Amino acid sequence: MKGIFISFEGIDGAGKTTILRLLEKYLKGKNLSVVSTYEPGDTLCGKKIRDILEQEENKLYSYTELLLYLADRAEHIKKVILPALYSSKIVICDRFFDSTIAYQGYGRGIDIDKIKMFDNFVRSSLLPELTILFDIEVEIGFKRKNIKLSEEYKLFFQRVRKGFLEIAKQEPQRIKIIDANRHINDVFFEVCRLVDKIIKINK
Amino acid sequence: MKGIFISFEGIDGAGKTTILRLLEKYLKGKNLSVVSTYEPGDTLCGKKIRDILEQEENKLYSYTELLLYLADRAEHIKKVILPALYSSKIVICDRFFDSTIAYQGYGRGIDIDKIKMFDNFVRSSLLPELTILFDIEVEIGFKRKNIKLSEEYKLFFQRVRKGFLEIAKQEPQRIKIIDANRHINDVFFEVCRLVDKIIKINK
Repeated sequence: MKGIFISFEGIDGAGKTTILRLLEKYLKGKNLSVVSTYEPGDTLCGKKIRDILEQEENKLYSYTELLLYLADRAEHIKKVILPALYSSKIVICDRFFDSTIAYQGYGRGIDIDKIKMFDNFVRSSLLPELTILFDIEVEIGFKRKNIKLSEEYKLFFQRVRKGFLEIAKQEPQRIKIIDANRHINDVFFEVCRLVDKIIKINK
Repeated sequence: MKGIFISFEGIDGAGKTTILRLLEKYLKGKNLSVVSTYEPGDTLCGKKIRDILEQEENKLYSYTELLLYLADRAEHIKKVILPALYSSKIVICDRFFDSTIAYQGYGRGIDIDKIKMFDNFVRSSLLPELTILFDIEVEIGFKRKNIKLSEEYKLFFQRVRKGFLEIAKQEPQRIKIIDANRHINDVFFEVCRLVDKIIKINK
């Protein structure tokens, strides 16, 4: 496997998807072969799973939700990520397993060791070489998306944000935290620097 | 929890669903409170999962398939089985976790210990008090359903059937094997005898 696997993480409104588009262009401009993808939903089966997750949001049992995310991931790794890595591509994935730990673990309260055990089975120890955590204050992130949060949701996303930061603290080598409260140009500049570095190491 | 949990297992064409309808009537005739249910698909979310499993059959990665069955089970236990058991009902479930071990383990070849570990997390050790295994020869089962099997499928279902028999051997206390090659009246008679016994024990 000669490709490079990069994941983007963070709560909603952190600018992940916008930066991913910019980064894709930036790398393609350097004649690099890039596959940008996302979870959940970037396979035939995944799209249907995403529909369930959206339609049944907040009505699903937390374990059901977790297992649906893992089913999406299993299919995604097998059908999209691994084939791209095996053909030496740079894969940039908008959300990967850190999101499961942050949202289902820190957010919903499922035992984190159990999530990790499950997730490891699904990933068969596939790990991004670089994970960029776009850290942003919950209020700022949702203001950007023009979404007004209830107090309950604000607390939920605060737990998720805190979760991401704790995960990053445990794996400083893989996970780099970027302050996403700043202007998008500044954030993008820092992302390019991190990605250029990882590409250089892998050459 | 005062209810009684019974599961029906076996390959297709063994007569599980027909017998389940007859048993439901038989028990209701005795003024017993019965909930008959099935996997996958007997919840709002489960119906959508079942659609995915049917539409994407044989195209899904085996792990994805496994995780979808487990997601269906998590929701089913939480929303249907446990509430019924807590209100002292007799729950008869057409397929439960033995099917996952037989189909995904023995059939598809996923590591059985891993399936058990996952499944136990989903079930939180909920176990049927009685499991009836309707054992039938693969050819006879599919002839009953007017389905012609390819050689590959025949081998698959033979592995599944063998799997069920091995599972039953490991848990003779819970799992009772019934010869379902016989006439449905004879099979039903034996089922009633087993169910009456478990109800008597639980009185």
